[in-house]
Order: sequence, then C-alpha cells, then structure tokens
Amino acid sequence: MAQQRKITLQESEIPTHWYNILADMPNKPMPPLHPGTKQPVGPDDLAPLFPMELIKQEVSTEKWVEIPDEVRNIYSIWRPTPMYRAYGLEKALGTQSKIYYKYEGVSPAGSHKPNTAVPQAYYNKEEGIRKISTETGAGQWGSALSFACKLFGISCEVFMVKVSYEGKPYRKVMMNTWGAKVHSSPSNLTEAGRKILAQDPNSPGSLGIAISEAVEVAALNEDTKYSLGSVLNHVLMHQTVIGLEALKQMEKAGDYPDIVIAPFGGGSNFAGITFPFLAQNLTGGKKIKAIAVEPTSCPKLTRGAFRYDFGDTVGMTPLIPMYTLGHNFIPSPIHAGGLRYHGAGAIVSQLLKDGIIEANAINQNECFEAGLLFSGTEGIIPAPEATHGIAEVIRQAKQADKEGVSKTILFNLCGHGHFDLSAYEQYLAGNLVDYEVPQEVINASLAELDTPAI
Amino acid sequence: MAQQRKITLQESEIPTHWYNILADMPNKPMPPLHPGTKQPVGPDDLAPLFPMELIKQEVSTEKWVEIPDEVRNIYSIWRPTPMYRAYGLEKALGTQSKIYYKYEGVSPAGSHKPNTAVPQAYYNKEEGIRKISTETGAGQWGSALSFACKLFGISCEVFMVKVSYEGKPYRKVMMNTWGAKVHSSPSNLTEAGRKILAQDPNSPGSLGIAISEAVEVAALNEDTKYSLGSVLNHVLMHQTVIGLEALKQMEKAGDYPDIVIAPFGGGSNFAGITFPFLAQNLTGGKKIKAIAVEPTSCPKLTRGAFRYDFGDTVGMTPLIPMYTLGHNFIPSPIHAGGLRYHGAGAIVSQLLKDGIIEANAINQNECFEAGLLFSGTEGIIPAPEATHGIAEVIRQAKQADKEGVSKTILFNLCGHGHFDLSAYEQYLAGNLVDYEVPQEVINASLAELDTPAI
Repeated sequence: MAQQRKITLQESEIPTHWYNILADMPNKPMPPLHPGTKQPVGPDDLAPLFPMELIKQEVSTEKWVEIPDEVRNIYSIWRPTPMYRAYGLEKALGTQSKIYYKYEGVSPAGSHKPNTAVPQAYYNKEEGIRKISTETGAGQWGSALSFACKLFGISCEVFMVKVSYEGKPYRKVMMNTWGAKVHSSPSNLTEAGRKILAQDPNSPGSLGIAISEAVEVAALNEDTKYSLGSVLNHVLMHQTVIGLEALKQMEKAGDYPDIVIAPFGGGSNFAGITFPFLAQNLTGGKKIKAIAVEPTSCPKLTRGAFRYDFGDTVGMTPLIPMYTLGHNFIPSPIHAGGLRYHGAGAIVSQLLKDGIIEANAINQNECFEAGLLFSGTEGIIPAPEATHGIAEVIRQAKQADKEGVSKTILFNLCGHGHFDLSAYEQYLAGNLVDYEVPQEVINASLAELDTPAI
Repeated sequence: MAQQRKITLQESEIPTHWYNILADMPNKPMPPLHPGTKQPVGPDDLAPLFPMELIKQEVSTEKWVEIPDEVRNIYSIWRPTPMYRAYGLEKALGTQSKIYYKYEGVSPAGSHKPNTAVPQAYYNKEEGIRKISTETGAGQWGSALSFACKLFGISCEVFMVKVSYEGKPYRKVMMNTWGAKVHSSPSNLTEAGRKILAQDPNSPGSLGIAISEAVEVAALNEDTKYSLGSVLNHVLMHQTVIGLEALKQMEKAGDYPDIVIAPFGGGSNFAGITFPFLAQNLTGGKKIKAIAVEPTSCPKLTRGAFRYDFGDTVGMTPLIPMYTLGHNFIPSPIHAGGLRYHGAGAIVSQLLKDGIIEANAINQNECFEAGLLFSGTEGIIPAPEATHGIAEVIRQAKQADKEGVSKTILFNLCGHGHFDLSAYEQYLAGNLVDYEVPQEVINASLAELDTPAI
C-alpha cells in the first residue's frame, strides 16, 4: 500500500499528564461568582457538588496535571485513538489541501466524553462518593458517565432532556446496560423540575433545566456529587489527551496543521483537540488557526454577549464569565443535541475575546450533507455534532483551493452517529429545516438577564 | 501502568494473504450439487451469481491467496483490529485462566462482516458489475455490503428479513446512508417473495427466504451479481485476516491459546478467528481446541443432520454438504438474528464431522447475562451474537478453575451491540424467553428433506 491511512500510537504513549492552558493564557478568565452573593466562589462553595481534587483542578494554574494510573488503565480500553489521513474525502473534494482527523468514536460510549467521565468518576470514588448525578442532552455524556461509574462501582443518576429521552430510547438503554438510572427531564423528582412542569406540563426540556435537576439532587444528598460533561475548566483539561496524542501523531506523519477545527457545544471537544496546539501558539511555537464550529440555531460564540451568566436555567450554578445567549434561551430542536447549550466555558470565552481562537456558525443541512459525503468516502458515519466540524473543513479546503494554496487541516471526529440515524433518515428524506435565530430573539433573551456585565 | 491491555499491530502488519484451510484439511468437503441435475456444480453454473475471481477462490485449494492492494487499503480504515487481554472480566470471574479477545466491532459497519464485503465488492467492480443483491438478517451483513459497495461505486440492493426490517429501523437507515436500497422480505418484487406471501401474507420472513429473493434478482439481471455474507468457502477464507492478525498478536503477548471460541451462524466469524490456529493443529504445530457456539433455538451443529441441503428456503441455491436442520426450519425469534440460519458451511461441517472442531449450544438468557457482565467489566457492549462466545468463555474458565488448571482462552468479539439495545432492554426487564427446540420439531423438519443423503 502506497499510502498510510492511520497514524497509531502504542498503549505506552497514552499521555501521562493533562495540559492546563490556564498556565499559558495571557489573560486568565475572571472568577466564577456565587449565585447568591455574587462574590467569587471558593472551594467550600463548590464542595457540596464536586470532590476536592476536581475543585483543585478547576482553579489550578499548573501547566501539567498528572493522570492517575487507574485512569490511564481505563483509558487504555480505547486510547490512544487513531488519527486518519482523509484520503477519501480529499479525493472527493479534489482539494490540494491535506486533511487529517482524530477519531474519538472508538470509545465504548462512542464519543470523546469518557475522557473526562473516567477521571471524574475516579476522583469521586477516591473520596468515598457513592453516587453521581448528571444531565444529558443527546445522550453522549450520560452514556460516558454511566460507563465510567460502572467501572468504578459508583451509582449514576441521569436527567435526560425529555425530547431525547423520548426520541432516542436506545441511548437510555445503553445507560441502563451500564447500570445507570435515567429520568426524563423535567421530572417531578426535583423542586426545579416541578417548577418547570408547573409552568409548562408539556415542556420538552433543555440542558439548562436538566442541569438544575441534577445539581439539586447532588446539593440535597450527602453521599451524592454532581458531574458536568463540558464547560468547566477541569473538564476541558481532561479532554486535552486528544490533542496531546494528535501532536505526537502529527509528528509521526511528518506534518503540522495550519488549521484545527472542532464542533462547539460547551467547549470540551474543541478544547481537547486545540489546546495542546494552542500551547505552541501561546509560547512562541508554530501557530495554528483554531476554529470552533457552532450551529446557527445556537450561535453563542458568533452572536452571543460576553458577560456573567448561569450554567443552568433555574440559576443554581455559579455565574460564569462566558459568551452566552442567556440562560433562558431555548435552542431550536436541531439534531446535534450536544450543541444545544446557551453558553460557552470561561476559558474558551476568554480565548475568543482575546482573538486567540475563531468561531463560525453553520446550518444543519450543510452539516448533514458534509456528514453523508464523509461516510461515503471515509466509511465512518459521524454524529450530528461532528458533522459541524466536517462542514467547516470542507469550507476551509475549498477556500484554500480558491486561493491556490494547500493547507494542512486537522479536525476532531468526536463521535459516531449510531444513535442518530433518525436524523440522517430525515435528512435523506429532505425533511431537515435550517434554523437561523432571528436577532430579536437573541436580543430579547439577553435583555432578560440581570446577571453582572463584564 | 503495570498491565498492558491492548495488543496492537501497525497498518503495515495487515495480512497480505488470506489463509485457505482447504489446503490443509485431511478430508475435503464433498462438492456442491446443482439444484436441478444434482450433479457437481461447475464454474459456469455459478457465473450468473458471482464474478469469476470469487468462483475461482471458492474451489481453490491453494494455501495462500493474495489480498489485492485496493482491498488492503480499505481494510486499513479499521484493520488491524485490536486484541485485548480481558483483565476486567478475569477479575470479575476470579479465574486463574487468561482471557483474550479480538475486537472486530471497530469496523464502520460494526462487525467482522466488512472483511469479506470489501473483497467481494472489489472483485465485482473489477469485472464490471454495476449492482449487487444480497439478504440480511440482523442487518450486520447488509450494512457491511452497503458500506463496501459505496466505497467502490456499486449499487447495492438488500432484502432484509421482515422482523428485523420492522424491529431495527436504524440498521435500515445505516444502509441507506451508504446509498443502498433496502426491502422488507418477503417482498412482492420477486417470484420467490410472492410465493411465500401467497402462502402467508403475514410471514415474518427468514434468512432462507431473503436469500431466495436476492438470488432471484441476480439470476434475472445481467448487470447484477449476488453476494453472501457467510457459509461459502471464499467468504470464510476472507475472514481469516482476523485469525492471522490474532496469531501475530498472541506472539507479541508471548502467549498461545489453549481454546479458541466464536459464535456460529453460517461459520464466517468462527472460521475467521479459528482457521489460522487450526492450520497449526493440521500441520503438526501447537494444538488448540476450537469451539463453535450456537443458540439452542437453532442447533444445527449439535443436533442437526449431516447431509446435502439448500442454502435457501425456496431451493434455488446449489446443494451444500452441511450440518442442517432442514431448509424449511424457521428458528424461534431470538435476538441473535445473525445466528438464525438453518445450516453450516461445507468446510466447517466437514471439520466438525472429522472431530477437528467442537460445538456447543447455549440459551439466550445465559448469553445476555454474559454480555452484561462483559459490558460492565470490559466496557464494550457486545452484539447478541457475540454474547454466545462470551458465555462459552465463562463456562470454559469456570471449568478450568474447577479442574484447578489455568487455560489461555481467546474469543472473537465479532461486533458491538449499538443496534441491539432493545434486546438488552428486554433482558433487563426479565422478558427474554429461552427457546430449546423440541426434538420432534427437528425430526419433522429433517423428515421433509428430499435432498441427497451423504
């Protein structure tokens, strides 16, 4: 075979440390604020929700944080993940550019999410926690945490956004298979859920509401902590194993990316692939262009405001300095459920504010068209979230061809679409609708906010 | 990390040749017979159905058949597949034995089936064929062939057993995503389908019926050939890439199996993992015990007759010398759809007849219990077919512990269960029924046969 398709690493090359970009950022994010006092939160404020080691990681500015052996041992079920040269896609596009992708869908849960679910479950287990509560939208995160909890013998309770709970029954069963309890959210199990149901008994739910429910369960139960699958600093840091491996793989391929692309929901997938490359940008090394891709139906990075906002709908979480559409913003029901979140993590928001990263928004029909081209040329059927990255890759390759240059483009194929085929069915039938949010809707949502400006 | 979990190979270590066990068998299988004349079939009889290169491979007794570069290139999307040491499962069992598994679920279609779908599509393309027809039960084979056809630009038409077509809609969409046309079988598109529907308009379908439909489409259309996902000699040979890689990986692990186990439907999965090891048995090398595991609801190896029988229900295929329950036998609706087939391939049947391999039958509740233990300890949710192998592994490990010995056990984890979670749901709810076939049902089915005895 003339062309090598996969660039693989040995089990011994699984990273030994996570990379903490806080160490290298020129401007650190502003501190999260207590939802009541509006003062910076301290470790004690977070202790009811998180084990102390994760609270330490959340505020740490150490550049490298060691990955425990037990975590690396579980990582080895699917890590190191393969990197591919996308010869099939390149050929179909007729592009001069070189396209690489890192494939995270090989994890048992089918996405990059176990990279942080496993250490989160581990630190909870180490501190004697018996149960973790969480929320899930499309189901990727809930699956990942269920998997991780099962391996460490911890109970897991998942509040799953009602539209997904009803539309993706097999995601629920997957979580059950790993022993988790799954509830449709809003539920009548929590004060937060009951409040929403009182206003609207037919509420389809949202990630923000499900977070409120999961946080409440953890706050009220001594033996239960809460776990979040994106947004927070420690979550983004855990995902850097993706980019750290990709750096080595690029070196093995004798190449280096000009552009690194990932879909954007809360920031964990994007951080995972880009931060280890941005470390070079920030410390005088080779420079990449990092592009976060969000759906036009939930455009917080490209059209949101940079200010303090809650992570959840009810207002129970700390206030985070973020690009946001407002915590009451309910995104249209696109199929990339993992990207339907009103805000962005503090670190990523600061990087965008400082011009260190870029963002684009793309409609879902363009994304599914890209996903179908990808599955027909590279073989792997991508998750709807991942198709956003692919669509941007295609745009960039076409742009480079138009300019007569060749770029080296890397993207994170964050998961497979095995549980999202009803979305492909609708796309193939021509039934997918693009939802571009009207400016007045965004304005109205932001006008409602009484959270501190920055 | 003290323990290495995965044994991986480089892309350059993808096998260059398939292994043909016909070269080493002490007794070759008897020839297939023409369904009309009952005389041995020649290449011309098969030419309407298969491209000439595959017909040659079907009768070849060369020990090694070269894998074309284009096929190895597509293989490299997911091959070499990882081999795992099952530390988690070993620990849960508290066994002294060592358990290894080869994981074929990393292919885009999610099982071992693309190992033969890709070369079959390739040889058809090389001989100018524009369309391939086939059948599928659980959907693994139809997905694999759709994937392979898409990559080589060939049309694909799949007759999918009605119960699966209705019960697994996402398998159908997966095939559509790769451009295939999928029909519920029995259909009114073929003479064979209309005949069945005339007898029973509510027929749930069977693999045998779907084969009749697909064969008819190929026989009647000049530009269309037929493709089968198991049973035939060339199909089994293509799957030996699994065992050839496993041999190398065992060597890297500094180990060698005492027992090699695989589920058994038509024989391709079993042949794939065991034949390269059996080559050692047959040529004076180290000896393994090879165990084929079938469901108690479809026990052709353990309770069938060894005689000539048709591969399909209507009687259009050549007569094959096989262990069979009779081509009219309709297996109970267990969830391992890929194992619901009345007969076994000629090679595997001869090996069983000659005492070179062994077979066991296991009930589905024991299999799902094993699958759940596996997913909770190793992380990967296995396909219902694959759980049959796991259940036998557990039996063997327990038996060895009882005897106070340590065995090295290898099995083929042939696919993931992402499209089979409704089966797990029923198992978790306690609703799965075990179907042990009454002897009089088998007797009656075999008594109906007017095919030649052996």
